Amino acid sequence: GFARLDLDRERRTGTPEVVFAAGKTPAETVACLAGLLDGATGPEPFAWATRVDDATAAAVLERWPDAVVDAQARCALVGRPPEPVGEVLVLTAGTSDGPVAAEVAATLRACGVGCRRVDDVGVAGIHRVLSVAPDLAAADAVVVVAGMDGALPSVVAGLTDRLVVAVPTSVGYGAAFEGLAALLTMLTACAPGVLVVNIDNGFGAGVAAARIARSRQR
Amino acid sequence: GFARLDLDRERRTGTPEVVFAAGKTPAETVACLAGLLDGATGPEPFAWATRVDDATAAAVLERWPDAVVDAQARCALVGRPPEPVGEVLVLTAGTSDGPVAAEVAATLRACGVGCRRVDDVGVAGIHRVLSVAPDLAAADAVVVVAGMDGALPSVVAGLTDRLVVAVPTSVGYGAAFEGLAALLTMLTACAPGVLVVNIDNGFGAGVAAARIARSRQR
Amino acid sequence: GFARLDLDRERRTGTPEVVFAAGKTPAETVACLAGLLDGATGPEPFAWATRVDDATAAAVLERWPDAVVDAQARCALVGRPPEPVGEVLVLTAGTSDGPVAAEVAATLRACGVGCRRVDDVGVAGIHRVLSVAPDLAAADAVVVVAGMDGALPSVVAGLTDRLVVAVPTSVGYGAAFEGLAALLTMLTACAPGVLVVNIDNGFGAGVAAARIARSRQR
Amino acid sequence: GFARLDLDRERRTGTPEVVFAAGKTPAETVACLAGLLDGATGPEPFAWATRVDDATAAAVLERWPDAVVDAQARCALVGRPPEPVGEVLVLTAGTSDGPVAAEVAATLRACGVGCRRVDDVGVAGIHRVLSVAPDLAAADAVVVVAGMDGALPSVVAGLTDRLVVAVPTSVGYGAAFEGLAALLTMLTACAPGVLVVNIDNGFGAGVAAARIARSRQR
Amino acid sequence: GFARLDLDRERRTGTPEVVFAAGKTPAETVACLAGLLDGATGPEPFAWATRVDDATAAAVLERWPDAVVDAQARCALVGRPPEPVGEVLVLTAGTSDGPVAAEVAATLRACGVGCRRVDDVGVAGIHRVLSVAPDLAAADAVVVVAGMDGALPSVVAGLTDRLVVAVPTSVGYGAAFEGLAALLTMLTACAPGVLVVNIDNGFGAGVAAARIARSRQR
Amino acid sequence: GFARLDLDRERRTGTPEVVFAAGKTPAETVACLAGLLDGATGPEPFAWATRVDDATAAAVLERWPDAVVDAQARCALVGRPPEPVGEVLVLTAGTSDGPVAAEVAATLRACGVGCRRVDDVGVAGIHRVLSVAPDLAAADAVVVVAGMDGALPSVVAGLTDRLVVAVPTSVGYGAAFEGLAALLTMLTACAPGVLVVNIDNGFGAGVAAARIARSRQR
Amino acid sequence: GFARLDLDRERRTGTPEVVFAAGKTPAETVACLAGLLDGATGPEPFAWATRVDDATAAAVLERWPDAVVDAQARCALVGRPPEPVGEVLVLTAGTSDGPVAAEVAATLRACGVGCRRVDDVGVAGIHRVLSVAPDLAAADAVVVVAGMDGALPSVVAGLTDRLVVAVPTSVGYGAAFEGLAALLTMLTACAPGVLVVNIDNGFGAGVAAARIARSRQR
Amino acid sequence: GFARLDLDRERRTGTPEVVFAAGKTPAETVACLAGLLDGATGPEPFAWATRVDDATAAAVLERWPDAVVDAQARCALVGRPPEPVGEVLVLTAGTSDGPVAAEVAATLRACGVGCRRVDDVGVAGIHRVLSVAPDLAAADAVVVVAGMDGALPSVVAGLTDRLVVAVPTSVGYGAAFEGLAALLTMLTACAPGVLVVNIDNGFGAGVAAARIARSRQR
Ligand SMILES: Nc1ncnc2c1ncn2[C@@H]1O[C@H](COP(=O)(O)O)[C@@H](O)[C@H]1O
Ligand SMILES: Nc1ncnc2c1ncn2[C@@H]1O[C@H](COP(=O)(O)O)[C@@H](O)[C@H]1O
Ligand SMILES: Nc1ncnc2c1ncn2[C@@H]1O[C@H](COP(=O)(O)O)[C@@H](O)[C@H]1O
Ligand SMILES: Nc1ncnc2c1ncn2[C@@H]1O[C@H](COP(=O)(O)O)[C@@H](O)[C@H]1O
Ligand SMILES: [Mg+2]
Ligand SMILES: [Mg+2]
Ligand SMILES: [Mg+2]
Ligand SMILES: [Mg+2]
Ligand SMILES: [Mg+2]
Ligand SMILES: [Mg+2]
Ligand SMILES: [Mg+2]
Ligand SMILES: [Mg+2]
Repeated sequence: GFARLDLDRERRTGTPEVVFAAGKTPAETVACLAGLLDGATGPEPFAWATRVDDATAAAVLERWPDAVVDAQARCALVGRPPEPVGEVLVLTAGTSDGPVAAEVAATLRACGVGCRRVDDVGVAGIHRVLSVAPDLAAADAVVVVAGMDGALPSVVAGLTDRLVVAVPTSVGYGAAFEGLAALLTMLTACAPGVLVVNIDNGFGAGVAAARIARSRQR
Repeated sequence: GFARLDLDRERRTGTPEVVFAAGKTPAETVACLAGLLDGATGPEPFAWATRVDDATAAAVLERWPDAVVDAQARCALVGRPPEPVGEVLVLTAGTSDGPVAAEVAATLRACGVGCRRVDDVGVAGIHRVLSVAPDLAAADAVVVVAGMDGALPSVVAGLTDRLVVAVPTSVGYGAAFEGLAALLTMLTACAPGVLVVNIDNGFGAGVAAARIARSRQR
Repeated sequence: GFARLDLDRERRTGTPEVVFAAGKTPAETVACLAGLLDGATGPEPFAWATRVDDATAAAVLERWPDAVVDAQARCALVGRPPEPVGEVLVLTAGTSDGPVAAEVAATLRACGVGCRRVDDVGVAGIHRVLSVAPDLAAADAVVVVAGMDGALPSVVAGLTDRLVVAVPTSVGYGAAFEGLAALLTMLTACAPGVLVVNIDNGFGAGVAAARIARSRQR
Repeated sequence: GFARLDLDRERRTGTPEVVFAAGKTPAETVACLAGLLDGATGPEPFAWATRVDDATAAAVLERWPDAVVDAQARCALVGRPPEPVGEVLVLTAGTSDGPVAAEVAATLRACGVGCRRVDDVGVAGIHRVLSVAPDLAAADAVVVVAGMDGALPSVVAGLTDRLVVAVPTSVGYGAAFEGLAALLTMLTACAPGVLVVNIDNGFGAGVAAARIARSRQR
Repeated sequence: GFARLDLDRERRTGTPEVVFAAGKTPAETVACLAGLLDGATGPEPFAWATRVDDATAAAVLERWPDAVVDAQARCALVGRPPEPVGEVLVLTAGTSDGPVAAEVAATLRACGVGCRRVDDVGVAGIHRVLSVAPDLAAADAVVVVAGMDGALPSVVAGLTDRLVVAVPTSVGYGAAFEGLAALLTMLTACAPGVLVVNIDNGFGAGVAAARIARSRQR
Repeated sequence: GFARLDLDRERRTGTPEVVFAAGKTPAETVACLAGLLDGATGPEPFAWATRVDDATAAAVLERWPDAVVDAQARCALVGRPPEPVGEVLVLTAGTSDGPVAAEVAATLRACGVGCRRVDDVGVAGIHRVLSVAPDLAAADAVVVVAGMDGALPSVVAGLTDRLVVAVPTSVGYGAAFEGLAALLTMLTACAPGVLVVNIDNGFGAGVAAARIARSRQR
Repeated sequence: GFARLDLDRERRTGTPEVVFAAGKTPAETVACLAGLLDGATGPEPFAWATRVDDATAAAVLERWPDAVVDAQARCALVGRPPEPVGEVLVLTAGTSDGPVAAEVAATLRACGVGCRRVDDVGVAGIHRVLSVAPDLAAADAVVVVAGMDGALPSVVAGLTDRLVVAVPTSVGYGAAFEGLAALLTMLTACAPGVLVVNIDNGFGAGVAAARIARSRQR
Repeated sequence: GFARLDLDRERRTGTPEVVFAAGKTPAETVACLAGLLDGATGPEPFAWATRVDDATAAAVLERWPDAVVDAQARCALVGRPPEPVGEVLVLTAGTSDGPVAAEVAATLRACGVGCRRVDDVGVAGIHRVLSVAPDLAAADAVVVVAGMDGALPSVVAGLTDRLVVAVPTSVGYGAAFEGLAALLTMLTACAPGVLVVNIDNGFGAGVAAARIARSRQR
């Protein structure tokens, strides 16, 4: 049919293929999820999708009434994700960055990694950043989600020896240019240890942080 | 001739015309300075130029042996600048931002305003920023000079009620895009009270800060 | 919960945290305003929000029937703002720049600073600019709001010794590139004394102008 | 050989082909000029080249000792240009825009049109613009050359019924982006009657203005 | 009130102020038109607006039932425009460029200049361009409207001694970047005599062409 | 009327004019199709349109009930296309690239060339690419459709001596910049033999591939 | 060592690996050429390099005195290229596009395909384009090299059923943006059948055209 | 004086401050290195600098004759770096990416982590990528360095469960836009697990990979 599922991906990369629902009809997303569940080789079939809109969420729930849909994160999980190990700290600069942080958190859950969120710690009130310093040391990795000036990862990376996975968001207006300003800030962060993913890509940040956490727990 | 000096500018704006030497031959810059000195109406003739290269500096010094040339700032001052009043705090994020901060300092001097510099307080070592907090309260205005991620003004503006004049610099490489990254960061700073000038425009930041300081001293 | 209000911000910066309603549900904005009112330490509780849409305005008015909503400015003020001191002159280049100028004016009101607006004085009819020259001398600071070519601040800054806070707007089409043309014009203004904020950022311009005015009135 | 001269162009467009020396060796430019002189059908052979560097200028002068080389304009004229008719007014915003204005002037001369230059009338000193108002009415067309903010054409076009041909220059730094800022300003000028050519394209502006002037003189 | 009409503009520039309805409520556009009609000094009151949407058109027609609304051009004319003199040739590259050409035509009508349109003569069928050659010689000026590659003005300018006013349109997709591709093509046209206006700016092209035509008819 | 159909185009270029319905009303598209059918000189009248929306599709079907509308491809074919010769292989990187590949396929059909599609062979599962190697040798040309990173053509071109026509799509978000990322990737492909068309331009890719296939079959 | 030559590439793609000398020392380029000659399996060893500067050319000639260096094309050929079959027509818009066309020609020679060049046929003198129409029909494919507005491929593609491989060049200044203007023009060409390669990439265009020609000759 | 060394950084982040020599005089770099060596608290003083040019290298070697200067990597190491633990695999797409990979390797050495390099495995010869699959499983992390299309990380990340740190390089020309094309490719990689650093930032990639390796070895 229209899709050629990569059922072997989990063996190669540790992460099974995930359905990117953005360009698909609800029926197509359901078909992809079914194909992944069918092709899964482990004891607990599990598959999930990102960028799920309301119509797709409904279609998933109709087919699998036990599915878990996280509306803010726009993710749908079918079956039981792996038991969580380790812990990733997820920080946001402002409350508007919440949906992207939710996608990070849902991804961590789907990848079987623990998640601790601390929100709204932007650098305009620098004491808020300083107050999370103890949490940094307890984490396997840190994901920092920020829009507008995207300055938070530069400060966080100067406070920890953990890897900082930086997610620029499209929050802001004008010269924020839909997340471009934050993206450039993070790429040029004056502190080393900052690694960057695409604008609003909570999924990619979550997968990367999960790999670090799982590798440290082995 | 080729130039139409705006001898009335000091009366209108409080700041006399300043020679922008970048696109001029040494002889043209000398001619402009001479014209401004001739046209000056105050008791102490004074004129100055920015973006002065070595050849122009030599030509200025040949004509006016008492001129003061600041090589790092690329400024040449002929005559006696006004007595300094007030104090502007000038911060840099890294040592490479030094030449732009020097242009700010030279401009403040030419405008008759005091200047206090604290260098290399970038956010990767946030304690360095916090340690300047007392200086902020003592200043009439703060100029923050930063390249690369340009994150410093966002943090400083969250610590003070002084105006923060932010100067993005072309320091950095790759996605710094000759200062564009820092410029966008500063324009989208998550703390209000940040006002932005052109990339590497220490002159503009200095004139603006001087206006604030002088106005507060009146 | 989802937000970590910076109740200490007024002490540090002179301006309390303001709710940016753009990325929030009406309920979230109301919760933030309530938190700020609760945390306020002064005698007159006061809090406000920008980028308020119709649904949020309604939710605010339902909770606080005495709230003042300025529909053009998209601002909602709850409680009594400080008594106004000083005066900031707010100019627009064209009538379409009105909403951004209204945000400047609402911000000045919320910050306790007087405001005088003169609209539609774009440089295509330069006599209109010249006719505001007397107003310039009477102001503590000048905010110039302009879209399309964004040329007005360059002219105004050549006529006054007041700081000119320039606000590019997204008014225009084609090569205006949603305000980018005006932003670049203002950053490269040929007259010094022009400081720039983000496109359509009437809030940031208002806070900055208020700081100048209040500092001059001390 | 390498070039296919368009000897018929003068008949079709009123302007003969002009040699763009920028991508050519001195020998190639000389060969092109010779070809154009050979192919010329009028009584007075005349040909010319733009963007002529020192080596090319020397080669031209060696071949045609009577050639006129304008070093600032980087133009070389061989033979006698047409007698000038009409008058185009050429304005510059700053003295650094001089070389581009010189290219306009050389082009007008080569096209047989009179030229009147007034330099350094930038909008930061608006009285300088107002003082050229009488010259505007006397001109067949106006060419305005400006870098940095590129604001001058907007003001001039509001003062005259003549066409304003606007030439953005690469003068400036940082957010001037090699003339992009001035280009966008001119394209979005708030006054109609402004027509724009490429950055630093004094040649194109000169040809266009010459067509207007010659057409009005017919 | 909100608008400061420039009633003197016709005297200065030959073209009265025109209402740009894009950023205005229907009531504001009507008020501006009324103000212009009131302030008009000539024997035949006439005023008009561009970028008129359906609601504004209805409001204009309710107030002035004799007004002429051109829906494709999005222009509304109230009163009697001047008698047409001269003739401008308006070419389009493709049929999708029609609305912008209609704005040019409506502007010419409002400015009292004759207009001849030939549509859909894009360079992919170059014989269509060649077939308009005779029309070129009969025109006072030529306006060329083209989107996508924007190649038509380069070819037309090589066939005529008339000025070519080039209007890039936002027609196209992908790398057309909303008209940017056509704009850059026109600015770098390999034939001189091409002058460029903003993307989709049929109004600006019409005013400029009208000035040329009227000046030639004097 | 409004359109000047290029009925001679098939003779000159082998491909008749095709209606681009994007900027046209349903009635205009129908009129263009009718004009092309009328003007066709071959024995089997045939004409078609791309970028057909639902309303236009309905209008076409009402006029020609036998027309074939491909909803995913947004193409409408009226009459009988030429018998297919040869075969073009069309690959997609992900399932979301389907609509653009469908436009390629519809174009090949309309041009009388065979088409073989293999979907969802993106480089994240490189074995999927390797498994199409045998198909490459059997094809006259290869069209590769890919969004996001656009990496597939670089890999495919290293595996075949067929021309690779690369079509970037607007699939993706953030730094995909509506297809710009994929476009730049394809233009800088490290393997030669990759030729690029506009973002989402399945039509252009199909016409080019058809020319190769037909020329090889002669 | 530092390079991993792809000796199998000719078998897979019909074109052996070619040394890109731009980022290599003369010694590295010589080593790569030697490795390719050693690894060649055919009867006539042949290898070549592009982007060869003077020092590298000298090093190649010292090692292989019979090597052929084309200075304008910046290519060095060692050994005997295949006997030429077929013919590709290579057009340039202006004489400054010569070096890129020379790279196309050298590539065709190295790939064993005949080449016919016609230079300086830009659209500003459209009769020059029309006069090559007969040559188009005789060619296996057409390569069109153009800078500045890049308009030539749009016109050529409307005159032929051959594939048009378009090469934008970095010739021009200002809004030509180092070839970006021409690139966008070619990607949005209003005639189908235009396929685009990277700016100044004569090598890629030559390889692609050679594939078409060789495939037609089989 | 001019620098405020962050001597505490190693304690906070595990990595001591490193001197960025790009914007400094040789004397300044030597002074910074001396300050870091003086301030070091461990038993083996060690400090190092990146972006070291020839003059700076000479100055370092004069002061510390035992220093190790890696000319290709542009790094200077003074004192004994930590004993290496773990192993990072560093891949390059082409031989021109060598200097950036050398900076990665020098950084790993300075951070006390083992490094294995495999060069020139670009996707145009995909078997070269496949042949490194066994090395991937043996590594703690993978750094992929690629210019031009930047496609290599997408393929590598589909073959391994290790984190892929992607470094875009400025290798290429035209639409490579100094590394922008590769940067966008990597940010939009179709395989998750790719994290991106700034263009040419071998230092940042090395620090990040070292953190992963050291954390896994604990
Ligand atoms: N379609 C248009 N495009 C560009 N400028 C226009 C247009 N229509 C009117 N204008 C100009 O817009 C100005 C009015 O701006 P405003 O004060 O916002 O009404 C007038 O000076 C007109 O010259
Ligand atoms: N470093 C600088 N950056 C920006 N503007 C400057 C600088 N130095 C002087 N200027 C301004 O440049 C103008 C002079 O331009 P010009 O006529 O070209 O000499 C003066 O009005 C100054 O206000
Ligand atoms: N939110 C997301 N952002 C980026 N990539 C994603 C996202 N969700 C899933 N993917 C990737 O998209 C690919 C599926 O693409 P497709 O074949 O179009 O379904 C999978 O390989 C996933 O790794
Ligand atoms: N002028 C050129 N433009 C683009 N790619 C080229 C050029 N010359 C050679 N190449 C390609 O560059 C690759 C070699 O890259 P490298 O490993 O750095 O030598 C080869 O695969 C060639 O296909
Ligand atoms: Mg907050
Ligand atoms: Mg430092
Ligand atoms: Mg107005
Ligand atoms: Mg001046
Ligand atoms: Mg058509
Ligand atoms: Mg897929
Ligand atoms: Mg030529
Ligand atoms: Mg290689």
